Amino acid sequence: MTYRAPVEEMVFTLRHVAGLDAVLAEGGSDLAPEDAIAILEEAGRFAAGVIAPLNRAGDRHGTPFSEGAVTTPPGWAAAYRAFVAGGWNGVLASPEHGGQGLPHLVAAACTEMWNGANLAFGLCPLLTAGGIEALAAHGSDDLKGRYLEKLVSGAWTATMNLTEPQAGSDLSGLRTRAEPNGDGSYRITGAKIYITYGEHDLADNICHLVLARLKDAPAGTRGISLFLVPKVLPDGARNDLRCSGIEHKLGIHASPTCSMAFGDGGGATGWLIGEENRGLACMFTMMNSARLNVGLQGVGVAEAATQKALDYARERRQGRAPGAAEPVSAIAAHADVQRMLLTMKAYTAASRGICYLTAQALDAAHGPEGRTAYDRASLLTPVAKAFATDIANEVTSLGVQVHGGMGFVEETGAAQLMRDARILGIYEGTNGIQAIDLVTRKLPLNGGTTVGAQIAAIRRVAEGLLKDGNPGFGHAAARLREGISSLDRATGFLLKALGSNRPQDALPGATPYLRLFGLVQGAACLAQAGLASSAALTAGETDPAHAARIALARFFAENLLPAASGLEQAILTGGSFADDPAFALAG
Amino acid sequence: MTYRAPVEEMVFTLRHVAGLDAVLAEGGSDLAPEDAIAILEEAGRFAAGVIAPLNRAGDRHGTPFSEGAVTTPPGWAAAYRAFVAGGWNGVLASPEHGGQGLPHLVAAACTEMWNGANLAFGLCPLLTAGGIEALAAHGSDDLKGRYLEKLVSGAWTATMNLTEPQAGSDLSGLRTRAEPNGDGSYRITGAKIYITYGEHDLADNICHLVLARLKDAPAGTRGISLFLVPKVLPDGARNDLRCSGIEHKLGIHASPTCSMAFGDGGGATGWLIGEENRGLACMFTMMNSARLNVGLQGVGVAEAATQKALDYARERRQGRAPGAAEPVSAIAAHADVQRMLLTMKAYTAASRGICYLTAQALDAAHGPEGRTAYDRASLLTPVAKAFATDIANEVTSLGVQVHGGMGFVEETGAAQLMRDARILGIYEGTNGIQAIDLVTRKLPLNGGTTVGAQIAAIRRVAEGLLKDGNPGFGHAAARLREGISSLDRATGFLLKALGSNRPQDALPGATPYLRLFGLVQGAACLAQAGLASSAALTAGETDPAHAARIALARFFAENLLPAASGLEQAILTGGSFADDPAFALAG
Repeated sequence: MTYRAPVEEMVFTLRHVAGLDAVLAEGGSDLAPEDAIAILEEAGRFAAGVIAPLNRAGDRHGTPFSEGAVTTPPGWAAAYRAFVAGGWNGVLASPEHGGQGLPHLVAAACTEMWNGANLAFGLCPLLTAGGIEALAAHGSDDLKGRYLEKLVSGAWTATMNLTEPQAGSDLSGLRTRAEPNGDGSYRITGAKIYITYGEHDLADNICHLVLARLKDAPAGTRGISLFLVPKVLPDGARNDLRCSGIEHKLGIHASPTCSMAFGDGGGATGWLIGEENRGLACMFTMMNSARLNVGLQGVGVAEAATQKALDYARERRQGRAPGAAEPVSAIAAHADVQRMLLTMKAYTAASRGICYLTAQALDAAHGPEGRTAYDRASLLTPVAKAFATDIANEVTSLGVQVHGGMGFVEETGAAQLMRDARILGIYEGTNGIQAIDLVTRKLPLNGGTTVGAQIAAIRRVAEGLLKDGNPGFGHAAARLREGISSLDRATGFLLKALGSNRPQDALPGATPYLRLFGLVQGAACLAQAGLASSAALTAGETDPAHAARIALARFFAENLLPAASGLEQAILTGGSFADDPAFALAG
Repeated sequence: MTYRAPVEEMVFTLRHVAGLDAVLAEGGSDLAPEDAIAILEEAGRFAAGVIAPLNRAGDRHGTPFSEGAVTTPPGWAAAYRAFVAGGWNGVLASPEHGGQGLPHLVAAACTEMWNGANLAFGLCPLLTAGGIEALAAHGSDDLKGRYLEKLVSGAWTATMNLTEPQAGSDLSGLRTRAEPNGDGSYRITGAKIYITYGEHDLADNICHLVLARLKDAPAGTRGISLFLVPKVLPDGARNDLRCSGIEHKLGIHASPTCSMAFGDGGGATGWLIGEENRGLACMFTMMNSARLNVGLQGVGVAEAATQKALDYARERRQGRAPGAAEPVSAIAAHADVQRMLLTMKAYTAASRGICYLTAQALDAAHGPEGRTAYDRASLLTPVAKAFATDIANEVTSLGVQVHGGMGFVEETGAAQLMRDARILGIYEGTNGIQAIDLVTRKLPLNGGTTVGAQIAAIRRVAEGLLKDGNPGFGHAAARLREGISSLDRATGFLLKALGSNRPQDALPGATPYLRLFGLVQGAACLAQAGLASSAALTAGETDPAHAARIALARFFAENLLPAASGLEQAILTGGSFADDPAFALAG
């Protein structure tokens, strides 16, 4: 078994950290928590039974490219058909377009499982979900009528065509052009790179969402429009676009990363999504959920690595642990290996909590909380994306370390998880860009009220710990209060620097600030789960998972959260290094 | 250019942090510092000009294995011949055996350069150096006469055959057997795995140093003996040993990792090194320098990644940095990228300082300081090995991050450095084992006097910062004093736990303690270099490298060293998690 969906832990987090029951009640659906749990259990069986077994072979096979065609690894097309047939592609989408209309919270848990089972496979529906969201929000009725149902079912897939060789993180330099045909369609010409699933054999049609520039459009990002450019035109003819090559990558070998050529023969036919020159705004619509989904990929692959390391550490016997009865102990009995395993478990669970909280905010934005919840989602999204994917790199690397020399040998599979995870901090906005977004756009939201409310919510968890008094929490309450103080002071420092128009003092601290935020928020999520378990124990429940949750909250607070003070110091150092001429970094 | 040997920085560190001039004077050689510098410059040209250009192709080619033979990539054999012809293989070895008899300090700098240029290539002479050291210290005159000169010249290479499938970090379970032939030789039978350069086509003979167990030997590690088992016997016949396969690995593809079968035909012929059942002691002789060499591999690959990232960040233009004149800035002008680049530079320079200090202690052990210096080398060795290789993983991963999407594409080369570096924390004793060695064996040395003296030396650097008063150091003095306090308290806690026979309180803190030690020692090394530069500026020198060194010491102290307090807290938490039954880690 390469991946077991941890449905019990996921459901506990959904209910006791992210408020699943309230989301379901407020969402007005007639879905009871038990129904949601049944769906997740079914998804877990599909992820573990159908998708996970393809992961290792997918890495070895890659996606051979020949004469414009990409072949997915053996078994992938059948698994994708089963995925579509099971209705899994439309979990989140509106029933109006054939979707199941489930909350973000349930969809998030599903996304975690697909990607825990197989990151390269999970990417395909993840891209389609982004396309569905952009099209549903901004597409004309005609365009929606033609494409949405096929995308929601998964019969067709979608891609995002943003990057060009000269325009990566900064889209203002885009050169792909669009010209109106006069019949409502446009001719698209240009080249795009890094197009995930830009070409493949899983579905009959691929709907490329392409950012391009109209003639006479304003310069920079205000002159970019979004187009839907299908591989196969409505009349069944092939559109004037092709995959011109695929990348040889460090990881996710089974996910084809394509270079795309549009309009070699005069222009690919496409249709505008939203208004002219408003393409970036259309992309921003789906940015919160797309970035959250990448964070969930991080949670999934971290979970997979943790399971693999734990399985290995229980089997592999080396040396005798102090006090052990047997002459040779499982390495899981050695304190240093335990630290690695618990670090993996704790980071994974903490980032799961953060991602689910973010999904909850997206759901609540459609309920009575409205804008407040939307702003909270906006605040939490860069943390969910970057913290979860940073720890995915760390956790998968620890997974290799637990395996020792076996971890460096590819057949073990631990190294693949590390290679696969490495993209997560880069795509969908690098983690540096997430940190800058958090500090420069999200902290100032509503004059700092949004971040203030979130810190207040974390403070309430710390108060809960103090009140609870379960000795299993150790010094968690004290550590959490210290962490909150660090977060508070760092937030104040950054808001003041931004308010004084001194971004050069705030920007250098962006990355340590995001980490600090993630640590404190993550500690609060684990504490909240621990408090729910403490209450359950008090109520007479005997499930050993309760004690484990309390112990994990303690481990995180006592061993990982203390990094907060060092991060605070680095943030408060401010602009001491930025552009210091002594470094001559810019050459 | 894929790697430029940073000879100027290396020499500055050698002289002003590690006391090269005193080492040369005390060593009794007639080598002047200028001569040593000339040697290093020549080594730098060889590393950059001959070894580095083979690195990318080596990764792609790997080492095809067929019918027991391993083929190194195109150009490798010629480069190895040039390496041998240049006398580089014998830098450290005694002139008595044809070596150059240079200090460890000079050899360390060379090792850094070979491995910065090409980790897979650098491993071959690194293994041979270990074989030379063990043979020179423990071999009979007859054995030394037959093998040492060829190994020192590099005409033949050496390997270390320790690991077996069931015996990795814990050698007590070794099963390879040795039986005396009655003529002074032994018959060796058994299987070994993970034998680096166990088979190759670079040299005419390969001397395998093999750990094996004699019949009726005591159980455990006290019954292990060391044998020299050559691929080609003195009479020119092939010995009864073969490579049975090579591993498919995450990195260092051009370094063949072999499974070895000894005695398929009845027994491979070998000769005892040292006394029967004292094989582990023979291995321990060379452990300090072998582990230091792996640390230097970490420094080298971190340097290579830093150079690559800096080159890319100066060329790649994205977005406009605040206050920039041009519409699109080099990404090196953005604060968040600067933080990554400076983190890479600072960790690399700090770990270089620690490794060179360790080499200095190995040299000083042969001088008037004697045992005190040897004990200092023993203390610093696990820090040099594990800190330098931990940061190598972090720095090479940051290198990928600086490249953005390009970093995930293999042709860029940044990903290879990350893949290659990943083995360094695993082999030659995992970094967890280094941490346990540091805490349980090295801290108690001489009743804690050895570690106390080292902390006192660091404290003198902090006092030097206070006295110097160059404003370029910012808050470095205060941060270093805080770091020292954390190290002091953590050391006291661990010594007390060990002294009270409570290893279960000390072992869980081993890894954070090693990191804490490395951070504080590394900050001191950078500060010491900065102080030398400050003095040079005061004396009227104008080299801009001086201001850069001061700024780097400040960056490290203000941004990276503050992690010390969180590590201290984790250490002082002690055994709160070890074997907590709530986790049920051991299954």
